[in-house]
Amino acid sequence: MAKVAVIGAGSWGTALALVLADNEHEVKLWGRRQEQMDEVTHKHTNHKYLPNITLPPSIEGTVDLKKAITGAEFIVLVTPTKVIREMVQQLIKVMEKEAVIIHASKGIEPGTHKRVSEMISEEFEQTNFMKDLIVLSGPSHAEEVALRQPTTVTASSLNINAAEQVQDLFMNHHFRVYTNADLIGVEIGGSLKNIIGLVCGLTNGLGYGDNTKAAIMTRGLAEMARLGIKLGANPMTFSGLSGLGDLIVTCTSVHSRNWRAGQMIGQGLVLDEVLDKMGMVVEGVRTTKATHELATKLNVEMPITNALYKVLFEQVNPKEAAELLMGRLKKHEVEEVSNYLLTEIDQ
Amino acid sequence: MAKVAVIGAGSWGTALALVLADNEHEVKLWGRRQEQMDEVTHKHTNHKYLPNITLPPSIEGTVDLKKAITGAEFIVLVTPTKVIREMVQQLIKVMEKEAVIIHASKGIEPGTHKRVSEMISEEFEQTNFMKDLIVLSGPSHAEEVALRQPTTVTASSLNINAAEQVQDLFMNHHFRVYTNADLIGVEIGGSLKNIIGLVCGLTNGLGYGDNTKAAIMTRGLAEMARLGIKLGANPMTFSGLSGLGDLIVTCTSVHSRNWRAGQMIGQGLVLDEVLDKMGMVVEGVRTTKATHELATKLNVEMPITNALYKVLFEQVNPKEAAELLMGRLKKHEVEEVSNYLLTEIDQ
Repeated sequence: MAKVAVIGAGSWGTALALVLADNEHEVKLWGRRQEQMDEVTHKHTNHKYLPNITLPPSIEGTVDLKKAITGAEFIVLVTPTKVIREMVQQLIKVMEKEAVIIHASKGIEPGTHKRVSEMISEEFEQTNFMKDLIVLSGPSHAEEVALRQPTTVTASSLNINAAEQVQDLFMNHHFRVYTNADLIGVEIGGSLKNIIGLVCGLTNGLGYGDNTKAAIMTRGLAEMARLGIKLGANPMTFSGLSGLGDLIVTCTSVHSRNWRAGQMIGQGLVLDEVLDKMGMVVEGVRTTKATHELATKLNVEMPITNALYKVLFEQVNPKEAAELLMGRLKKHEVEEVSNYLLTEIDQ
Repeated sequence: MAKVAVIGAGSWGTALALVLADNEHEVKLWGRRQEQMDEVTHKHTNHKYLPNITLPPSIEGTVDLKKAITGAEFIVLVTPTKVIREMVQQLIKVMEKEAVIIHASKGIEPGTHKRVSEMISEEFEQTNFMKDLIVLSGPSHAEEVALRQPTTVTASSLNINAAEQVQDLFMNHHFRVYTNADLIGVEIGGSLKNIIGLVCGLTNGLGYGDNTKAAIMTRGLAEMARLGIKLGANPMTFSGLSGLGDLIVTCTSVHSRNWRAGQMIGQGLVLDEVLDKMGMVVEGVRTTKATHELATKLNVEMPITNALYKVLFEQVNPKEAAELLMGRLKKHEVEEVSNYLLTEIDQ
């Protein structure tokens, strides 16, 4: 059994700690708030993030980062993407020996256009504390994982042996872990699906139904793949759990924050009002900005992302943007997904 | 403007007639029941199949097949797959000159394992009445099409010029038609998605949530593609509107018959009870049988289809089948979707 530190005690961090404790690993869960960490340790609940769930009593909550990671062979980072660099800087200050780093964060950094694994690697660069780096991604509401409902996720790393180690760490009867060697594709899929989730919420807010949602998801997946391919991803990763699978969960569930934020925008609220109302991070908003910058720079056609960018940051009316998007008039429209992908593979 | 006969006055046939009439074509809608056809012609409604929708007054309903097709340049077949051969035989008796045949039916014939276009071609073989044959497929609830909500579909044919003709016929601002030259892939995708839709309903009936649904859909799409590739389809078609898009609508909407039938089975009803309750054709049931036969014959691994087959036809308990499916224990599971598809393309 391994010693594991889970950094970040929101719903996903707590659910991953639960899976690890189910597998009889020694788990410490780190969070910022003393009261919440005491609740985890003594009451075996984290009611704000996972209401009605009893956690395995072996999970120890702590606000002491050094205590959390001391002796840990694996460190699982589950913090908002915005604070990931700062979190790694804090970790480095208290680490004494190397550990396998696992991250479960999603997004692309505006300005630098780096993926989360690139941000983490950069921060660890001057140290020898990072043994390997693995991303865990896939279709997984934390609440359902905590209920031990059948769930499947992907572990990906540049070092496939390290990904297999992480597979062993998390795998159990309810929580199935698959490996995929395409780190770029897995991270890009996990990040960009939040954009499409926002747009699906938005069309729902406008009163459109399943036909529109299916069209946005299908063509959304194609534009995610287009950007991914340009960045070096394997196009097929986008048909897997961390691409299509995660997209499905984000776009077809009212639980998704990005979907709900999009829905409010479709109903007429402006971005600032929505972010105020949510009171939580909506990862897709920052990702839309970063992806729009990146697509422009790389000259990749991303009509759905661009339409959302215009709504979020250029005050374009959502209904106008959606109609423009659906009605792009071409005389002979071909499903260019297929041809584009095949051409890229043939090269 | 063209003369078009729509054969089959259920919800989808009526919605397609509405699109064609919106485009100012001369549309005759054929159905078996006099009263219903009078309602279409005189009241401009078809309340049983499209409640609360007013149809364009130019649509003429008729029970007279010869009258429906006389002068028609295009004949759109929208009948249950089970009666498609019989319908074509009746058509041949009254046709006098060739027409473009468009079909919007889904399924695979048990025993022969033929796709709908193959069944139609076989029936027309001894005549010269079939000018071209095009399938129309994609993510489209009839109700939403009738409400002029943004919808996207695929037109596919061995003759791509004919597909483009059909694209022109149907295309308007709300109803976007894309072309795809991969007839096999489009028909297999449209047929097999009903199997996955049944299984998604089934897991919902068992009480499982979004994580399980996303896993079933993702891995379901992969097994659809595996069979399709074996039959000569372009793997990428499965990522398009007629594959993924249609799968999304079937699996994430309570409107879908296949989904609802699956849900009842998950809740403990047996197949005969479900079919009784539905009182409508559940295309996925026949397709499961035919696909299971075909996959066995061609030696294609389709674990989801096989699990459903066992539940539907071999009285295996749904919960047992689902758990077996999700928990297939392998030490190192890799997302084989990707590798499989890429290998096939490389060849």
